[in-house]
Amino acid sequence: MLRISLAALAVASCACAQTFQRLGTCPKLGCVFPPDRTTFVPGQAFDIRLEVHAPTNGSEAYANGVPDETFTFTICKDGGAEKSVTEFFKVDDPKLEKWNFTYFEDLFAQQADTPVTVNVAAKAYRHLALYEPGNYTAKLTYYDGTVTEALWKVREPSYKRKAKNVILFIGDGMAPTMVTAARLLGHKSVNGEYLTTLQLDEMEALGLQRTHSIDSFITDSANSATALYTGKKSSVNALNVYADSSPDPFDDPKFETFAEMFYRIQGGKVGIVSKAYIADATPAAMTAHTRRRADYPEIIDSFLNGVTANYSWTEFKGVDVLMGGGAENFQAPESFKNQDYYELFADRGYSVVYDKDELEGADSSKKLLGIFTTGNMDKWLDQKVYPQNTVGNENSPKNDGTDAPNQPDLKQMTLKAIEVLSKRAKADGDKGFVLMSEAASIDKMMHVLDYDRALGELLELDDTVRATFQKLKDLGELEDTLVVVTADHGHGFDVFGSADTMYLASADTPRAKRTAVGVYEQSGLSGYQVRQGTNPKNNTRVIGPQGPGFPVTWEPRYAIAAGTVAFPDKRENYTVHTQGPRVPADEIEGLDAPTDGNYVNPEDAPNGYISNGTLPVDQSQGVHSLTDVGVYASGPGSEMFRGVYDSTGIFFRIADALNLGRTENVTVKH
Amino acid sequence: MLRISLAALAVASCACAQTFQRLGTCPKLGCVFPPDRTTFVPGQAFDIRLEVHAPTNGSEAYANGVPDETFTFTICKDGGAEKSVTEFFKVDDPKLEKWNFTYFEDLFAQQADTPVTVNVAAKAYRHLALYEPGNYTAKLTYYDGTVTEALWKVREPSYKRKAKNVILFIGDGMAPTMVTAARLLGHKSVNGEYLTTLQLDEMEALGLQRTHSIDSFITDSANSATALYTGKKSSVNALNVYADSSPDPFDDPKFETFAEMFYRIQGGKVGIVSKAYIADATPAAMTAHTRRRADYPEIIDSFLNGVTANYSWTEFKGVDVLMGGGAENFQAPESFKNQDYYELFADRGYSVVYDKDELEGADSSKKLLGIFTTGNMDKWLDQKVYPQNTVGNENSPKNDGTDAPNQPDLKQMTLKAIEVLSKRAKADGDKGFVLMSEAASIDKMMHVLDYDRALGELLELDDTVRATFQKLKDLGELEDTLVVVTADHGHGFDVFGSADTMYLASADTPRAKRTAVGVYEQSGLSGYQVRQGTNPKNNTRVIGPQGPGFPVTWEPRYAIAAGTVAFPDKRENYTVHTQGPRVPADEIEGLDAPTDGNYVNPEDAPNGYISNGTLPVDQSQGVHSLTDVGVYASGPGSEMFRGVYDSTGIFFRIADALNLGRTENVTVKH
Repeated sequence: MLRISLAALAVASCACAQTFQRLGTCPKLGCVFPPDRTTFVPGQAFDIRLEVHAPTNGSEAYANGVPDETFTFTICKDGGAEKSVTEFFKVDDPKLEKWNFTYFEDLFAQQADTPVTVNVAAKAYRHLALYEPGNYTAKLTYYDGTVTEALWKVREPSYKRKAKNVILFIGDGMAPTMVTAARLLGHKSVNGEYLTTLQLDEMEALGLQRTHSIDSFITDSANSATALYTGKKSSVNALNVYADSSPDPFDDPKFETFAEMFYRIQGGKVGIVSKAYIADATPAAMTAHTRRRADYPEIIDSFLNGVTANYSWTEFKGVDVLMGGGAENFQAPESFKNQDYYELFADRGYSVVYDKDELEGADSSKKLLGIFTTGNMDKWLDQKVYPQNTVGNENSPKNDGTDAPNQPDLKQMTLKAIEVLSKRAKADGDKGFVLMSEAASIDKMMHVLDYDRALGELLELDDTVRATFQKLKDLGELEDTLVVVTADHGHGFDVFGSADTMYLASADTPRAKRTAVGVYEQSGLSGYQVRQGTNPKNNTRVIGPQGPGFPVTWEPRYAIAAGTVAFPDKRENYTVHTQGPRVPADEIEGLDAPTDGNYVNPEDAPNGYISNGTLPVDQSQGVHSLTDVGVYASGPGSEMFRGVYDSTGIFFRIADALNLGRTENVTVKH
Repeated sequence: MLRISLAALAVASCACAQTFQRLGTCPKLGCVFPPDRTTFVPGQAFDIRLEVHAPTNGSEAYANGVPDETFTFTICKDGGAEKSVTEFFKVDDPKLEKWNFTYFEDLFAQQADTPVTVNVAAKAYRHLALYEPGNYTAKLTYYDGTVTEALWKVREPSYKRKAKNVILFIGDGMAPTMVTAARLLGHKSVNGEYLTTLQLDEMEALGLQRTHSIDSFITDSANSATALYTGKKSSVNALNVYADSSPDPFDDPKFETFAEMFYRIQGGKVGIVSKAYIADATPAAMTAHTRRRADYPEIIDSFLNGVTANYSWTEFKGVDVLMGGGAENFQAPESFKNQDYYELFADRGYSVVYDKDELEGADSSKKLLGIFTTGNMDKWLDQKVYPQNTVGNENSPKNDGTDAPNQPDLKQMTLKAIEVLSKRAKADGDKGFVLMSEAASIDKMMHVLDYDRALGELLELDDTVRATFQKLKDLGELEDTLVVVTADHGHGFDVFGSADTMYLASADTPRAKRTAVGVYEQSGLSGYQVRQGTNPKNNTRVIGPQGPGFPVTWEPRYAIAAGTVAFPDKRENYTVHTQGPRVPADEIEGLDAPTDGNYVNPEDAPNGYISNGTLPVDQSQGVHSLTDVGVYASGPGSEMFRGVYDSTGIFFRIADALNLGRTENVTVKH
């Protein structure tokens, strides 16, 4: 059997495509999706995509750029007989597809503008499933006997449903280091012992999950939400598909999410809540399937209609609860086919609400759409501590350029969502509900190095989780509900001391200002849990205006000295940004500096000191990091969430708790 | 009753002593040690120290600087009768002590050199214990009725011994982010799934512990080792004492370690292994009691003789195994009373060994002292990958200025220690053993921003833990041994992408060099798990020269782009330091730059790009951070280590596993 020698892929300069890849997950010239080592819950729907590549130039140039169109594909289970894919799945062979794409082999090639062109022959098989647990060997044969094999595994189903409901909280970007810092700000310690701690600290099960992508070790939120909801690693920007090389973002091979499976198999209700624009990756990944997370119009449509592209897929007639920002994608000109989705949701029986009061008053027996702003919703710190920053933003959900002064917070949205989902599920056979609630702006504020706002969002999440348990108890759902809190990735953030902000502001050189940072014993105690100007060693607990679990003051003289490992040029003064979210860097015009990329925003922390960035100068913000992230779970099935595992493990544990595995096709009527 | 108004402590400028403290753990002018909220295992020995402060000047000036010498101290249990301390413990009242000390209220005061002087009246009660579980209220009354109360809690004993042996591994400075990064370097993933993982990933129980100090939220290794070994939070630089204000570092109030209690109560064997100089904080804290971790001569003596200061304390006739570096403190002129500790240990029946071969040949039935270098032992990366760096260091354990070319590694030391401890324990009534084994240079290399060396040490630790389970199995000790791996604190470290080191070196401006960093999808796959110049997407596992669980190459073209949040001025090129450990910053003489503090070391990463530091310019290294650290446990009692808790919780769980709580005085004969 002829195989392409891998050694031949390495050239003297080692243009070995680590970071500039021909196609992630396809190390050979023949590509199989789902790729090697994919694991399924039995009955989980998926597409197959096969590609044969013929690079016309570059270190992998092959076959004069003519891809083999006669490739074959077989499947065998547990060492049994090899069957052709059409025989195995009893489907017809689809039409051959052809396209080409280009890529750069490395930075030198990119800067010289010498791309590689790849011609492709491909096929796709749509909406299949494997029902029998076991190991499957999928084999693509091409170029006269070259083989790409993929081992697929189908797990045993759990057989028993442990939880009626699942609530999955995602703290977007919430690294464990940020949980630690949030505890320091929100809770008081006396002689080294915390008087109170986070709700996250009190959960029944603790785990850590690895967040890397299928083809890179740093993930984005689309990619990682895909892993959490489907058990499949994918690529940056991809929502519930494997990234193929075709130009169409909607033809990439799909796989089902736990929300789709729960709806299809258990007939339960699905809710989505986020403080981001609701078409953003983490909420979108509950129902959307696209290579391109920025397909916002189609994503909004998927919340109401499921997948409606030209391929058969799991029927999904809409979420029961949808709340967040992103009004612009609900109406022309930025909506799907310029339709008015407020009207379309209302036509399908949804209450449509636009502010906190309307939300509170909404009928809990009806489906609910709550869109409260254009773009992302305001941050907790602005909503609660600096409300003047919520004025003048022209972010009304009516898309009329007025303000959105009366937004709910994450807790209000989440508790209402639970109320609606519980009531509607009970009224429809008590088949349970799943809810994803996202503290989206932990990530968004960490990107702009606004540590205070990020930690405010994290404390809001913690407060919301605490209130959720009470709500579940009130509704009689506590014993039946698995609550899981996790993150999709982290940022390389930590606290390394405290900064005497008064000294820092008064010192007159950048190097003198750095003296304001106290490390080790001079970090002292948290200044956030005492009234301003009082002694942090006072043993008495003080509760601030935002209630227990939040800082008493956000403006202590001795503030946390915190930072990230990945940053654009930035200036730090460790002082809360009272005027609104931070903008650390920007492309500066009219300065002496050349305008090649981002420099310190001259208006940010003007009395601070500068560190030149660690990131490429085209980055104006921080980026995601490698860190494992925490998993905190309570309720039936929570014991499964202990230990260290992959992000995909979240899906498999939820699927087991809800008993989503099926050894035959199950689709309930809606 | 007159109390000092806390409000009076706050002045307009808020010199409220957060980071510049009169005395940590003493918010009032009357100080009680053990302080409020101390928890004991029943029978755990401790000292009491009482102080009354009279600041002569500053914002707390009181009583014209004359401390109340007539203070009284009472104790009552569970709301019972108040008894004087002498009656309660049936001890005589000690002599009153007097001294003074000075401190600065803040940075402004420090720079103006305007200290506060505090006069002190004090007493100490030595070597006490509380045997009855319950809550005790200790009350210091001074200044005509002012009161400082301390609530002490004595836990229930565990009653049942779960583990015969405990092995505690400490990865010094090992933040969870570093565990993630070490996995990336040491293990290969294919399509997002690791083919192998860390031993730490496979442990039965996962926990997170909070690392803060009693009086600051950032800890050092002395302070945190104290918490881990005794269940008592203390202060930076303190080993198993509460920091009082007296000038003598040996008169501070002590409390027992689990090693001392295990020796006293169970009669078991104690072993200590570290890659640091063996008087360093983490090994020292097993047996030493001092306010000043730098008391190396006395610390070495404590390994052999226990505490020999002028106060009665738990008898400790020496560890059974002691291995590490730090030869200079074993002989004059840097040894305790200029004694030759090699001779003293030998006189007490120890095998004394100085290199790997002697270690291997040592009689496992004898006590064992192995000192292999002056200072810290060489790093794993230098020992195994760049052995030329172990030459010319003039670090012979014989203190003769020759080299130490034949050092054992952490695994060799640990496995030998287990063999000796197991054999000797079995020969002496099978009362079990405790071993602390420290991967010390994870921390030391992270301090100098040498990420590669730090991760090498971490992988060495992981490999050692894996080998430990096999060794325990071979010795028939596996079922009886609790193995706990944790850290004492972290560093704010993370990986944020990969760097094309070839591009970085070739680019000609600092800003252009930053383009070499690939983030998100351009982070790509780990280049450390393939042979140099081959495709990282090759699915085949390759095992490198250092064996499984280590990188195949340390010099991939695409290296991890990593950093810390706290750094001196530094320059990064993301390339392994082949010439030995990194020196990122230094006080530069003879340059145009002023010599006020540290600047980038001109010889470090000369082809890299600079970021100005985030730390005070007197810091030449990185510092510890706030992050919670991981706890990984297997074996009998390991289930107790799940969840989120304080660093002190490690002690209480070990004490419960070994059943160290006693409701009456137990001291076995040795």
